[in-house]
Amino acid sequence: MTASPTRASGTASLQHVVAAQQFDRQRLASLFRLSEEMERVRLEGGHQLLPGRIMATLFYEPSTRTRLSFEAAMLRLGGQVLSTENAKDFSSAIKGETLEDTVRIVAGYSDCIVLRHHEEGAAARAAAVSPVPVINAGDGPGQHPTQALLDVFTIRQELGRLDHLHVVMVGDLAHGRTVHSLAYLLALYPGLRVTLVAPEPIGMSPGLIQHLLRHGARVDETDDLLAAVSDADVVYQTRLQVERLSQPLDPGRTGLERFRVDRRVMERMPEGAILMHPLPRVGEIDPEVDQDPRAAYFRQARNGVAVRMALLRSLLQP
Amino acid sequence: MTASPTRASGTASLQHVVAAQQFDRQRLASLFRLSEEMERVRLEGGHQLLPGRIMATLFYEPSTRTRLSFEAAMLRLGGQVLSTENAKDFSSAIKGETLEDTVRIVAGYSDCIVLRHHEEGAAARAAAVSPVPVINAGDGPGQHPTQALLDVFTIRQELGRLDHLHVVMVGDLAHGRTVHSLAYLLALYPGLRVTLVAPEPIGMSPGLIQHLLRHGARVDETDDLLAAVSDADVVYQTRLQVERLSQPLDPGRTGLERFRVDRRVMERMPEGAILMHPLPRVGEIDPEVDQDPRAAYFRQARNGVAVRMALLRSLLQP
Amino acid sequence: MTASPTRASGTASLQHVVAAQQFDRQRLASLFRLSEEMERVRLEGGHQLLPGRIMATLFYEPSTRTRLSFEAAMLRLGGQVLSTENAKDFSSAIKGETLEDTVRIVAGYSDCIVLRHHEEGAAARAAAVSPVPVINAGDGPGQHPTQALLDVFTIRQELGRLDHLHVVMVGDLAHGRTVHSLAYLLALYPGLRVTLVAPEPIGMSPGLIQHLLRHGARVDETDDLLAAVSDADVVYQTRLQVERLSQPLDPGRTGLERFRVDRRVMERMPEGAILMHPLPRVGEIDPEVDQDPRAAYFRQARNGVAVRMALLRSLLQP
Repeated sequence: MTASPTRASGTASLQHVVAAQQFDRQRLASLFRLSEEMERVRLEGGHQLLPGRIMATLFYEPSTRTRLSFEAAMLRLGGQVLSTENAKDFSSAIKGETLEDTVRIVAGYSDCIVLRHHEEGAAARAAAVSPVPVINAGDGPGQHPTQALLDVFTIRQELGRLDHLHVVMVGDLAHGRTVHSLAYLLALYPGLRVTLVAPEPIGMSPGLIQHLLRHGARVDETDDLLAAVSDADVVYQTRLQVERLSQPLDPGRTGLERFRVDRRVMERMPEGAILMHPLPRVGEIDPEVDQDPRAAYFRQARNGVAVRMALLRSLLQP
Repeated sequence: MTASPTRASGTASLQHVVAAQQFDRQRLASLFRLSEEMERVRLEGGHQLLPGRIMATLFYEPSTRTRLSFEAAMLRLGGQVLSTENAKDFSSAIKGETLEDTVRIVAGYSDCIVLRHHEEGAAARAAAVSPVPVINAGDGPGQHPTQALLDVFTIRQELGRLDHLHVVMVGDLAHGRTVHSLAYLLALYPGLRVTLVAPEPIGMSPGLIQHLLRHGARVDETDDLLAAVSDADVVYQTRLQVERLSQPLDPGRTGLERFRVDRRVMERMPEGAILMHPLPRVGEIDPEVDQDPRAAYFRQARNGVAVRMALLRSLLQP
Repeated sequence: MTASPTRASGTASLQHVVAAQQFDRQRLASLFRLSEEMERVRLEGGHQLLPGRIMATLFYEPSTRTRLSFEAAMLRLGGQVLSTENAKDFSSAIKGETLEDTVRIVAGYSDCIVLRHHEEGAAARAAAVSPVPVINAGDGPGQHPTQALLDVFTIRQELGRLDHLHVVMVGDLAHGRTVHSLAYLLALYPGLRVTLVAPEPIGMSPGLIQHLLRHGARVDETDDLLAAVSDADVVYQTRLQVERLSQPLDPGRTGLERFRVDRRVMERMPEGAILMHPLPRVGEIDPEVDQDPRAAYFRQARNGVAVRMALLRSLLQP
């Protein structure tokens, strides 16, 4: 990470949002308070909080879900949007241009840039040259900090607390950048217990497990999903990140099918627990559980709007 | 069709717009009154009737014409737009997601969804799970109800009435979903006479002819375009729907070239008649007739904005 | 050029912006005064000068930079945007439609059309049939008038004058439509001196050199970039227009690498001179000179917003 993203905590204002590591507990608390306020604004149909301000979505790989969530956030704040679904033409073979040049130019058209890029570190490079705030909307295998922030916000909204949680993480824990950032942020709170349920070849990296342990979390690994969920507060399911595999892995042979969440699993989950998923899902959660009030994934997706409204407000407010 | 689209008539409010069959004469009358009002709003450059409301265009196949018409309608009402030209990335091979999941997520970002999809029945599936109104902007070989509504509105605007019409339908009557929905809606009015002019392999389906007859319409079929138009009120020309053919058909061998509308055909049309076409055209109407005041197709396209404004207003007004 | 773009000068209002040749000195002076005012509006975050007005960007070839610049201009004026990055689907093999038909339809949805097309003359054809103003955002090897206007505006902003300039044009002078339009506009001012620095096969066309001479400009050609820049007011660098070459040219064998601008070249440039480039660059300017205050290319790109605001304001103001 470059030096440009502000790391100061508390009320000190952010310049760019590049990595989940920029957020400590104080900054998260203030972001979540603002997100709650923004959720009320959203439910009221939006307010003119950023009239005339322009957000540019600069997406080098398509991610319609993330793009629309950011754009909805900006529109609910009364702002406007410059949208590009396929920014690759900026750097095509014919008219090649560096990311830095593109960012400098787009910064001349807008008040803030939301960047999605296929290369790790792209957001930090953009932030280093941009005169307007840059928000990382995913940089390849790197970070996707706003997803992690909305995940933690969702837990707080659903359970009313962030300490002394038992979080069961299920699925592809090796490639899902979501669970990495989530684990990082949850480790900021006391009393964390994490249970990892993943087939061996796609288990969580030893480095991240060490990080959790160093921060006082208890970490268990198990193959027994039913036992694991039986005293969970949060079950966080993920999908196989086929697109990030270095070697092809036969989806039918990952062992992931054993960890599918269905009615049988829900029956073992405590009444007050929630089931989360960053979406899209491709079979890891049986649609038969959608009606269960503990199935929080669509509320989780919707929370992305409030959290992104809060970030835009913080970054763009005079 | 699912049960979700409201079928009640008159002033009862619509929840979703999935099929032309949701509209009876009473509901059409009220929609057209509102469309006339919206046309005045449009001519005045738009009003702030839906400030802060967000419409999402979710297009799984490109249809820039339809998308821009809906977006113009929403902007003229003071609303905002989330736009996706290529929603297929939601359901790509890598990150497959069901239409139902996508719709639930996009409903969390917007106040209404305009859906274009390649599969028949997609709009009804979306309406069944969406907490916000869904408007069908074409579902494959299925329905395209807003096109049919703007067609009927155009006839009413141009001719001042919808009863006792002689409508000559020309071209590819087998694949054009437009003429199907149009025939259905026109059959609601008394005194309808329809003359079908189409090469044999792409004539209108016996089922639809039966439907017209059951509703008291007179139906003729002929090869003689010049005779047919000579006492027409409306000549509705269509193009060969190459993309919907199950078997390749040589465009040069369909016999359609005999039914091209040119100056010679216009000379036979009554003075008070109009020539319509859903556009795009690819040769079925000679551009030499564009200046003829009876050539109504560009006014017809423009009427789409007023009709869509009226639908959005009905669906989104508190 | 068709007859439709107004050629009258001074305060007479423009109907369409198709070619740089529509602008004489009087019209440029009034456009630049308005652009300066618009730059103040832009710095203040935009004003509601065109509320409710809709601009459609109709792009048949991608040019995200130009599209975003126009859209930013419209949004800063309080207007709205209908955007199409890939208008080719209007004229796809399946549903072919003439440019003229598309323009008539889109004119029914919007108050002004910004057209980017791959065919020379497309903008004039569009203007000939459009009931709303058309702005040419580049038509293939033809014109790109707003680029030329922002270039001249930049020189005026940076140097405070447009007469008695020594402009050094470097690079691919055969294919860069930018330098053609720029040369045309600069020739309107007295005392112009142009020095051309280009490898022989991609030098400036004799016709354009004749045009400059006829208008009283002094024209020199040289291989010695360092000598040329030593008394320049403006050094205008360009990139090889690979995509417009009729025959493949090995970029490594054009001789262009001799004309790369780096610190060594900057050292020879006078203190009050500026370095311009239409961007994107792909190596013709070494990033090491970006920090030099004379490197004006990012300010030049940003000036596009003010100039386009001024054009939109002129065309759309009641």
